[in-house]
Amino acid sequence: MTINKKIILKNNPVGVPKETDFEIAESIIPEISENEILTKTIHLSLDPYIRGVITGRHIYSEKVNIGDTIVGRTVGEVITSDHHDYNKGDIVVCSNGWQEYGVTNGEGVRKLDPSSAPLSTALGILGMPGLTAYAGLLVYGEPKENDLIVVSAASGPVGCMVGQIAQIYGAKAVGIAGTNEKCETVINKFGFLDCINYKTENLEQRIKEICPNGIDVYFDNVGGETLNIMTRNLAMYARIVLCGFMTQYNLETPPPGPNLGPIVGSRASIKGVVVYDHYDKQEDFISLATGWLKEGKIKYIEDEVFGLEKAPSHFCKLMRGENHGKTIVTMEQ
Amino acid sequence: MTINKKIILKNNPVGVPKETDFEIAESIIPEISENEILTKTIHLSLDPYIRGVITGRHIYSEKVNIGDTIVGRTVGEVITSDHHDYNKGDIVVCSNGWQEYGVTNGEGVRKLDPSSAPLSTALGILGMPGLTAYAGLLVYGEPKENDLIVVSAASGPVGCMVGQIAQIYGAKAVGIAGTNEKCETVINKFGFLDCINYKTENLEQRIKEICPNGIDVYFDNVGGETLNIMTRNLAMYARIVLCGFMTQYNLETPPPGPNLGPIVGSRASIKGVVVYDHYDKQEDFISLATGWLKEGKIKYIEDEVFGLEKAPSHFCKLMRGENHGKTIVTMEQ
Repeated sequence: MTINKKIILKNNPVGVPKETDFEIAESIIPEISENEILTKTIHLSLDPYIRGVITGRHIYSEKVNIGDTIVGRTVGEVITSDHHDYNKGDIVVCSNGWQEYGVTNGEGVRKLDPSSAPLSTALGILGMPGLTAYAGLLVYGEPKENDLIVVSAASGPVGCMVGQIAQIYGAKAVGIAGTNEKCETVINKFGFLDCINYKTENLEQRIKEICPNGIDVYFDNVGGETLNIMTRNLAMYARIVLCGFMTQYNLETPPPGPNLGPIVGSRASIKGVVVYDHYDKQEDFISLATGWLKEGKIKYIEDEVFGLEKAPSHFCKLMRGENHGKTIVTMEQ
Repeated sequence: MTINKKIILKNNPVGVPKETDFEIAESIIPEISENEILTKTIHLSLDPYIRGVITGRHIYSEKVNIGDTIVGRTVGEVITSDHHDYNKGDIVVCSNGWQEYGVTNGEGVRKLDPSSAPLSTALGILGMPGLTAYAGLLVYGEPKENDLIVVSAASGPVGCMVGQIAQIYGAKAVGIAGTNEKCETVINKFGFLDCINYKTENLEQRIKEICPNGIDVYFDNVGGETLNIMTRNLAMYARIVLCGFMTQYNLETPPPGPNLGPIVGSRASIKGVVVYDHYDKQEDFISLATGWLKEGKIKYIEDEVFGLEKAPSHFCKLMRGENHGKTIVTMEQ
């Protein structure tokens, strides 16, 4: 079998992407050259940043044009190798995108130990989203014992790690999410103090009740009105960590942001986290977090579907905020 | 003569204040009690923050109610004293507000040496606005040799000091102001590299021309669209110092702020400066800045009128951005 099934961009999405913006295509499995490896995808990670890449708005990736394979991080098995670091049968994290097979020269590839944790976690809580949470919280959030850390998109892989790491460091976590099911998971599975359903509850009133002395750290994955409300409810010397802007990935033009007047009053600081700046911490993070996972100190949930052809609908579900946990496509073997 | 002329609030201003929102009133010159001093105002400082106090939006001052004397920093001469630190004839900085005489227990009062600098500078470049510029720029802006520092309201007492101190520390200053006359002063008198008239020029285009590698520090005195444009034109690791929000002091509800997406891309940080946090630096600042003034390294301009009855119209002019330099009311003696 020499066919490589893949998902390509059919139309530039307008607003929230639709399944019909994508289509299945086939190509020949590529041959490797010197120092390259061919991997067969096992798990594909669907992440919000992919929307920005499709639009050409992502800083570190070139726009996906019509006819191009959609990008994405993957866990794959090495099928053939001409690279001295990798052997047939090795399991690696790589960036095959939305296709069955991919070739890489090893750049950005990382070998996995299948015995240390479930493979798909390398795309979620032990992968890029986990490192984002770890670096963003510890470097910019600077959580202290008993600090109140509020995080939006709290049931997602970044959000759940922010709240769980905060608790490991002695702080208290409060989540914001968009369904009661998500809120229950955030409280019962991830151990947050509380979780607010921003769609059905009065977010500002509930924040004032839960955090009467203000928020010490707001870890923002969404932007928009949620960010605006949090800026008005900060404790003195609070830290806002800007991580994601889920409310605006599907908009054509960037909307206004929060009024910054309250930032001055609370002497808060605002910093953005870009995970690519923090790969020097990856080894420490994975070693720590793998331990936490084994000890049961961190938990995770995945929203998994089977079969590459499900990637478009599963991605659209993520874009509508209807996923419950880290969005994973597992290939049918 | 025992009459104390003063200006009181007649109406709560809606939008930009009008002269008719204020009226002249008279009272008896107050008597001092134990440990108090009576001062006669020489100079009255008009500052944008007063607008916030009138609305009740200022964090550190109680709202000015109808019938109350308008607040403000003043330079005055001690007329009678029962305070061991002050003698008749001493010149002090105090907060008499918009009136001829005031009584104080010495809190927040500072004695001036009339030989060291013109008295009115204690309300401007050597006073609260100067300290704001000094602390905000050096503590949060962290200017480095050859950094490009952009400052809005550049001809005002904060703005002109930010740009001049930046130059003393080896950085380059670029101003933003609202008239050609202001821009000429900023360049020719204060030595800025350039100054953009945001009302007649394309601000974003000009910033891109003057700062092709981005802005290292943006010292913001205005908020609004200017702040939004600057966030899109930052150098890597830029610092935004939030100091004033002139665009919104006269609005009933706080407008949205800048989109914060670009902050993440440029790894910028945002901090607010509140001058009250930095009075520990006042002595150093005054000593340094008095030296700079004597050596001709810093210059200043004042928009001075004579007579307390001119305070309302002069304040309204400031609120419309039509002042040219630090707004001072000098009493007729």
